[in-house]
Amino acid sequence: MPKEVITQRSVDYNQWYLDIVREADLAEVAEVVRGCIVVKAHGWAIWELMQRALDDRIKATGHANVQFPLLIPKSFIMKEAEHVEGFAPEVAEVTRAGGEELAEPYVIRPTSETIIGYFYSKWIRSYRDLPLLYNQWANVMRWEMRTRPFLRTAEFWWQEGHTAHATEAEAEEETLRILHEVYADFVEKEMAVPVIRGLKTEKEKFPGALRSYCIEAMMQDGRALQAGTSHNLGQNFARAFDITFTDQHNTIQYAWTTSWGVSTRLIGALIMTHSDDEGLVLPPRLAPIQVVVVPIYKNDEERSAVMEAVNRMTAAWKGRLRFKVDDRDTYSPGYKFNEWELKGVPVRIEIGPKDVAKETVALARRDMPGKAGKSFVPQAGLTERIEALLAEMQTGLFQRALAFREARTADVTTYDELKEQIERGFARAYWAGSTADEKRIQEETRATIRCIPLEQPGTVGRCVYTGRETDRQVIFARAY
Amino acid sequence: MPKEVITQRSVDYNQWYLDIVREADLAEVAEVVRGCIVVKAHGWAIWELMQRALDDRIKATGHANVQFPLLIPKSFIMKEAEHVEGFAPEVAEVTRAGGEELAEPYVIRPTSETIIGYFYSKWIRSYRDLPLLYNQWANVMRWEMRTRPFLRTAEFWWQEGHTAHATEAEAEEETLRILHEVYADFVEKEMAVPVIRGLKTEKEKFPGALRSYCIEAMMQDGRALQAGTSHNLGQNFARAFDITFTDQHNTIQYAWTTSWGVSTRLIGALIMTHSDDEGLVLPPRLAPIQVVVVPIYKNDEERSAVMEAVNRMTAAWKGRLRFKVDDRDTYSPGYKFNEWELKGVPVRIEIGPKDVAKETVALARRDMPGKAGKSFVPQAGLTERIEALLAEMQTGLFQRALAFREARTADVTTYDELKEQIERGFARAYWAGSTADEKRIQEETRATIRCIPLEQPGTVGRCVYTGRETDRQVIFARAY
Repeated sequence: MPKEVITQRSVDYNQWYLDIVREADLAEVAEVVRGCIVVKAHGWAIWELMQRALDDRIKATGHANVQFPLLIPKSFIMKEAEHVEGFAPEVAEVTRAGGEELAEPYVIRPTSETIIGYFYSKWIRSYRDLPLLYNQWANVMRWEMRTRPFLRTAEFWWQEGHTAHATEAEAEEETLRILHEVYADFVEKEMAVPVIRGLKTEKEKFPGALRSYCIEAMMQDGRALQAGTSHNLGQNFARAFDITFTDQHNTIQYAWTTSWGVSTRLIGALIMTHSDDEGLVLPPRLAPIQVVVVPIYKNDEERSAVMEAVNRMTAAWKGRLRFKVDDRDTYSPGYKFNEWELKGVPVRIEIGPKDVAKETVALARRDMPGKAGKSFVPQAGLTERIEALLAEMQTGLFQRALAFREARTADVTTYDELKEQIERGFARAYWAGSTADEKRIQEETRATIRCIPLEQPGTVGRCVYTGRETDRQVIFARAY
Repeated sequence: MPKEVITQRSVDYNQWYLDIVREADLAEVAEVVRGCIVVKAHGWAIWELMQRALDDRIKATGHANVQFPLLIPKSFIMKEAEHVEGFAPEVAEVTRAGGEELAEPYVIRPTSETIIGYFYSKWIRSYRDLPLLYNQWANVMRWEMRTRPFLRTAEFWWQEGHTAHATEAEAEEETLRILHEVYADFVEKEMAVPVIRGLKTEKEKFPGALRSYCIEAMMQDGRALQAGTSHNLGQNFARAFDITFTDQHNTIQYAWTTSWGVSTRLIGALIMTHSDDEGLVLPPRLAPIQVVVVPIYKNDEERSAVMEAVNRMTAAWKGRLRFKVDDRDTYSPGYKFNEWELKGVPVRIEIGPKDVAKETVALARRDMPGKAGKSFVPQAGLTERIEALLAEMQTGLFQRALAFREARTADVTTYDELKEQIERGFARAYWAGSTADEKRIQEETRATIRCIPLEQPGTVGRCVYTGRETDRQVIFARAY
């Protein structure tokens, strides 16, 4: 049933999001620290599962984790022209430390290309030192004006990969490997969120990059959320930080570098893709608790019979399922059902004295709220049944999100059609406009080109804005 | 054989430490960021193994991970009297952000009691909300004057647990559970470093704590290193931050809080406990690579025979051993042996064409450098042999460190004996002196009371300094 604590999506989508963040115990606005949040236990547990799954992929593709300093000399940020413009206005500065004014301020890293560039310049001497394939898990800070938990906060948590290569081809290969094998694979398989893989336009690319690739997801209000970016930085940072190496022919060359990152923003994407008016919905692979067991009893005798069955049942789950037995005596079963629904636990098992007698349990699946998702099943074979159900839910959530995105994506051939389509979702259009055209469209519609999809139809059409012929299609959408 | 790149311990212990940090690729002084380091790939991989083993214990004892903001309003640090004195002089301050001067500066957290106290005050209302058992993995910053990689750096990485309880007894129980079940258990079993568990004196306790417990380890130069602390904060922070709750009798009470932490400093302890003049020595449980295989061949034919044997051999290791096959063609076997010795890989397997023919390998153990640790063993049963050897090395390193500590610990009954003993190790003494006495001893000898061991002999003797009778013994030592 609809919950009073959660605003319905149809009434106020933004408030619905904030209600979920609060009621599912994911995060709290810090108030006393401007634009920052406290990530609460359930939110951080989800992030830890995300980190583990991402880290496995990052290591499997040959990268090692390292840790660079939190602080960056302010002058470093100023060394790469586009980078200055992109980040200088939003840094937090340390000007005093140990009771004294500092001769040169430090900034808290908004991203680490510059400080890492400095060290790569020291570490790289010869082609034998390449490639350098490093990643770090870190907190970063950007003094944003308008913040929203997970989606945009002053401090956020992410991984940032930074690599250096001998050739442009190798840097490009790395940039795309991360996009496909790490980011798209993680977001689609673990988060059950379908993504469009594409290239950013000049206007939207990372400040200082040669080319930025991204994965874009659609939220339930039809808006886009950039779920990860992978940048081929060309030789821009190598020139700014003098990252050179001696090649096989004894010639000194600038290295080719890349950087790529995903952040706690993904928690926002997870919420907005799957959740409903009952609360959070989690794909089983990222659910800190996959199964909650709520024992039901009225007296000590019933309690001991029920708990004995629960213990027998869950003994088989250790190491196979992440589960919790909610045996708190201070709360009613109804209160517990509500709490675990809000927190998005995929499967709930209820078991009372009658179930013990009949050797059954009641099973409720979170992706189908209410009666539709509830069934009575035998205790025999329950573990396998739950495992199969979790796998089915994981696939089901992905398919549902994919169907939603497809239903909300349309080809548009005129600017009027574009304006109409971005009210409900993604507008796919031929595009041959300029950066100035893009800016004008953004001013007029608040929509941007999310990406130039890597998969192109190979056909020719007329640009939705300029009417010029082109074989390039892009995705327009309003974005988070 | 002794390595030129590593200063011998007997020549210059401090330089030996710095040489190991550099040559084992553990960390690098950041230079451009005062007092900070870059933790390099091998160092961070060790820290990740430490984190995993600690985190498992932290969760097994009922705690959940959360994440509080990096920045703390400066006024918060000023709220608890002893805390101000302890931390205010060494904070880094953010005074400007987003291009504007801030009305109130923030400090980068030197530790998070104050900001967490603020939120606990909001979250805790009733006895039903208690206990609150949270931990966070975070970077912290203290503007230290004299820094040394891992041992003392401006930025460091740690976990900090913060809990709130309804009674003093529960807070005390928590403080000691962490000391025993999390810290001492981790440091002794995983790091193979024996520790003395004890209470800090008033002079040495955490600023703002009621009681601080600690574990103290002995380094190879006889000096002490505090390897972890667990603080019963009493109601001090609850009073400063108004953390109150309504108890069962409807009375408003201040909560009892605790905090506890271990940091990347433990990497320093690991190095200084086990390493030798050949480089790093790692206990197998914390070795990112437990076994390195160095194939030896002179031509393609030999290469293919050797690599076939290597592949057959290592197929059985997946999921059982952390291993690496070093098949780089750009380096000689001798170069590789040297590199992996420096990095502390516990077991090295060498295999050449003759070994293939004889179905043997050469096995070298890092804890016995040179010929003593090298043997030729059959390929049959190698996996089990290595597993048994790693377990033996883990125990052996602990026993060796324990024997060393015992040999370097002595009971002292006079101040002269104390002065002499602290030149070589720990001085155990009866103690009934004051804080002023402790300060005087520190000024005169540079030694401090490391702890009042929890295990006491139960006998009575005369205080080493005042001559007063007491049943309390303490450990004096110079400390890192």
